[in-house]
Amino acid sequence: MHGLGTHLLVELKACNTKLLNDLKKVEAIMVDAAKIANATIVGVHFHKFSPFGISGVVVIAESHLSIHTWPEYGYAAVDIFTCGDVLKPEVAADFLVERFQSKHPSIIEVRRGILSKGNVKLPHKTVPTIEDVPADDRVKELQMVP
Amino acid sequence: MHGLGTHLLVELKACNTKLLNDLKKVEAIMVDAAKIANATIVGVHFHKFSPFGISGVVVIAESHLSIHTWPEYGYAAVDIFTCGDVLKPEVAADFLVERFQSKHPSIIEVRRGILSKGNVKLPHKTVPTIEDVPADDRVKELQMVP
Repeated sequence: MHGLGTHLLVELKACNTKLLNDLKKVEAIMVDAAKIANATIVGVHFHKFSPFGISGVVVIAESHLSIHTWPEYGYAAVDIFTCGDVLKPEVAADFLVERFQSKHPSIIEVRRGILSKGNVKLPHKTVPTIEDVPADDRVKELQMVP
Repeated sequence: MHGLGTHLLVELKACNTKLLNDLKKVEAIMVDAAKIANATIVGVHFHKFSPFGISGVVVIAESHLSIHTWPEYGYAAVDIFTCGDVLKPEVAADFLVERFQSKHPSIIEVRRGILSKGNVKLPHKTVPTIEDVPADDRVKELQMVP
């Protein structure tokens, strides 16, 4: 089926538990996953929680990658949401399975935004660009775009 | 089934198209949705794309809410990912359906992180808080991870 978005729900079980609680490493791995999938990064936002666990989102021009980790269970929930034909979300998923050393990964692919009745492929805005906006924080994020 | 996270995949079809391209309004609605669900907001990151479309994430202590809009098709893909027992993600979903004036909404609930074999409810860190500790202390915490 043709949809506007491709959404991978990635269940990473039996991961390296120390890695899942390392803010810098989790962030670096998620950013690398976005890059390896040919995504255009527009924002990177990660938080470490007490007593443990990390949440983070890499906002990309083609949607987002997110992660929530439960180091205490060796588990991470990853979502890779992409649109357009250029990105390779499956490459990002494979990369994350390997980097987080998940011994029991699983991936579910969900097609989002199936709108046409005859399974027609709807035209998609090709490579979206961020609009110029004055807010200071957005200006900073704009500078992160490669 | 008991899982670590509850993930609602919300398909908002036939929405108010103008609303879907209004950065400030989309952001305000998503923030309000997080609040109405009793979430603790830790970060709000929204971007407007050219020629149209908005992507945004509300990072909450209990995971995240995200949205990607296709104003040209009156469609928005929303994800509400929560953990713990306090939040009411379904309340946020209902709120978003109403505010974006979606005439054809649909919601799929996905249980993330089903880890126990006997469907035992695993203990969850109650209300996580963002860390504000030096790196050395984090090393100590790592040793606590089983």
